[in-house]
Amino acid sequence: MLLRHPLFLSSAMLLASCATAPENTWSSQSMSENKPASQAVAQAAPAMAAYSARFIKGDLWNRPALSARDRSLVTLSALISRNDRTELADYLNLALDNGVTPGEIAESLTHLAFYAGWPNATSAAVTTQAVFAARHIDFSRLPGADVAPLPLDEEGEAKRAAMVEQNFGHVAPGVVKYTTEALFRDLWLRPGLAPRDRSLITVSALVTAGQVAQVPYHLNRAMDNGLTQEQAAEVLTQLAFIAGWPNIFSALPVFKEVFTSRQPA
Amino acid sequence: MLLRHPLFLSSAMLLASCATAPENTWSSQSMSENKPASQAVAQAAPAMAAYSARFIKGDLWNRPALSARDRSLVTLSALISRNDRTELADYLNLALDNGVTPGEIAESLTHLAFYAGWPNATSAAVTTQAVFAARHIDFSRLPGADVAPLPLDEEGEAKRAAMVEQNFGHVAPGVVKYTTEALFRDLWLRPGLAPRDRSLITVSALVTAGQVAQVPYHLNRAMDNGLTQEQAAEVLTQLAFIAGWPNIFSALPVFKEVFTSRQPA
Amino acid sequence: MLLRHPLFLSSAMLLASCATAPENTWSSQSMSENKPASQAVAQAAPAMAAYSARFIKGDLWNRPALSARDRSLVTLSALISRNDRTELADYLNLALDNGVTPGEIAESLTHLAFYAGWPNATSAAVTTQAVFAARHIDFSRLPGADVAPLPLDEEGEAKRAAMVEQNFGHVAPGVVKYTTEALFRDLWLRPGLAPRDRSLITVSALVTAGQVAQVPYHLNRAMDNGLTQEQAAEVLTQLAFIAGWPNIFSALPVFKEVFTSRQPA
Repeated sequence: MLLRHPLFLSSAMLLASCATAPENTWSSQSMSENKPASQAVAQAAPAMAAYSARFIKGDLWNRPALSARDRSLVTLSALISRNDRTELADYLNLALDNGVTPGEIAESLTHLAFYAGWPNATSAAVTTQAVFAARHIDFSRLPGADVAPLPLDEEGEAKRAAMVEQNFGHVAPGVVKYTTEALFRDLWLRPGLAPRDRSLITVSALVTAGQVAQVPYHLNRAMDNGLTQEQAAEVLTQLAFIAGWPNIFSALPVFKEVFTSRQPA
Repeated sequence: MLLRHPLFLSSAMLLASCATAPENTWSSQSMSENKPASQAVAQAAPAMAAYSARFIKGDLWNRPALSARDRSLVTLSALISRNDRTELADYLNLALDNGVTPGEIAESLTHLAFYAGWPNATSAAVTTQAVFAARHIDFSRLPGADVAPLPLDEEGEAKRAAMVEQNFGHVAPGVVKYTTEALFRDLWLRPGLAPRDRSLITVSALVTAGQVAQVPYHLNRAMDNGLTQEQAAEVLTQLAFIAGWPNIFSALPVFKEVFTSRQPA
Repeated sequence: MLLRHPLFLSSAMLLASCATAPENTWSSQSMSENKPASQAVAQAAPAMAAYSARFIKGDLWNRPALSARDRSLVTLSALISRNDRTELADYLNLALDNGVTPGEIAESLTHLAFYAGWPNATSAAVTTQAVFAARHIDFSRLPGADVAPLPLDEEGEAKRAAMVEQNFGHVAPGVVKYTTEALFRDLWLRPGLAPRDRSLITVSALVTAGQVAQVPYHLNRAMDNGLTQEQAAEVLTQLAFIAGWPNIFSALPVFKEVFTSRQPA
């Protein structure tokens, strides 16, 4: 199909990355990517295909509460958390069309290696490598180990480290060590993905994995990092269709409590 | 193999759908479907194959507390919730042999798109499409968007909507909107799958995903919709072998509380 | 590649199984197994590859708190619990290199059929069968149904059975029946995997599945069966990189409570 020609997609991506507000949230070329899967749904579950057209493609992705770019990050995080690869290539292409850069995708995989597990991120990397190759993305320009770290909030980090050390230092010293060295004094300081976006995909991964106990810390961090309450709420709307309704209804009371606790008295 | 000839399977299915109480709960043709997987188990984990023969095939599926048809719905829901496709084709064939109709399977996929997430249902649709095609099932007769809805219990739905609106209307308006519009005023009213069966697969999905917080609402709804306590309990027995023991022991106290709360004082 | 020649691997395994403390925790031949996956990570997420080299391969696997053999059991259990097959073959080969015997792997699959679900263990068996075949492992020597059981702690088992019967006997009699007959009077008595190792993979499966409610019983059992507190803590460190950080932080308070409750007053 003509639209899928790599060069076309590559320029489509460049255009999308440059645009301030990319208009093609769910573009026709992305829609056609995974023909076998969408055709299978249309044939084996036609009502599901109809719901998809009515609620997801023409509605959810255009809701103003969250940009299409952010919805793409949320969706990728959920798919990687679920270790789902059936539609991952489609959503990677859609993310690139929606303005997520290749570097941000590479950082997201790295981030989710820690927050969804190495095997999930590894599986996702296999699909990502193929998508990047098809779009002639230059691998050598993706961020590696040597980057200039963002400035560290020494006070906040000292407080976090002290609390974790006090709670779990004698329980699991190895976990505490890597949490400080690998996560909070390294991964979170990498400049390739904004702290607000790291928080966005972390919260998405937590909701998708049903790990609501970790939501208060990371949702507060997300909102401290710039995610608005309206956006955070809409993350749940987006995730309802990917992680499924039950996970969202388990997360709702926790989100509510965080929202309430942040309101001025 | 002769038994797998599409025409034979197709007539086997027709016979099974017509019979009131299909006798072949785990028929020889289904057993032979996924030869590589069952042969791999027999070779690499012979004790597991022996347990399978002793406890699952010759025992669990014949327990009278739950029909083989219901066990098939429970099993499909659990496999789709887990996004497991290794044996999905076998269990789809077994479900058809056990009297689940193609239309009910299509509705189950649609239902689980909401309750287990779109990606899981999409992956399952790919396998389902292939199984339906091999059995010469007529895709054009599967239920689409335009169906006459079941009557709505306006009072019960108004109560549900009011409670959710009060709890979460200001927290995540998008979730609340789709929950009403897409789920309770649309999906649950589709006639292709009985409300009792929708509840059966919803509860199975919840237990398999470890989402016990959502069990009380849906288990009560299931029992209001006609699932008996004995059947509900046996759903857990069936799921023990699919979702694994830990999920079942996490669900047991929640089931117990629901059962107790419904007993006459 | 020369190192992957089946005969070489087969002898490497034999050597590893005989050695008291196998030195090759993450051997070069295992590293090269899944070239596509590790190459994809290196290309699509170079920072993740760098973290992997820095924290996992050269560091985590050499920490003295847990042997490489135990780390392999933990890792296999987590991968099977996650139903992840992208790197399962690599980790099966690594486990064999690290001294886990083919019989112990077969028993682990059988054990996890109950604790992670039949479909997950079945998928894993497909990969295991291929790995065993490539290493010329003799399937006929793997333990089947007929083995001399370990002696049963009748008193402890009677207490466990009584508690479960009292709590859930009237809730789900089928679950209670199979829990006694299949699990505690059969599976756990099989001699092919030491009770301490069964507990090790059970706890690993629970943490990976996020089923912390079941951790106290099984972590206590693990420690009664010989797992030290230092080893149990390090299981969490190992799992952080496989199951992801959120699951570990949800498990930490539960581990802490078990550790505390076992300390002499």
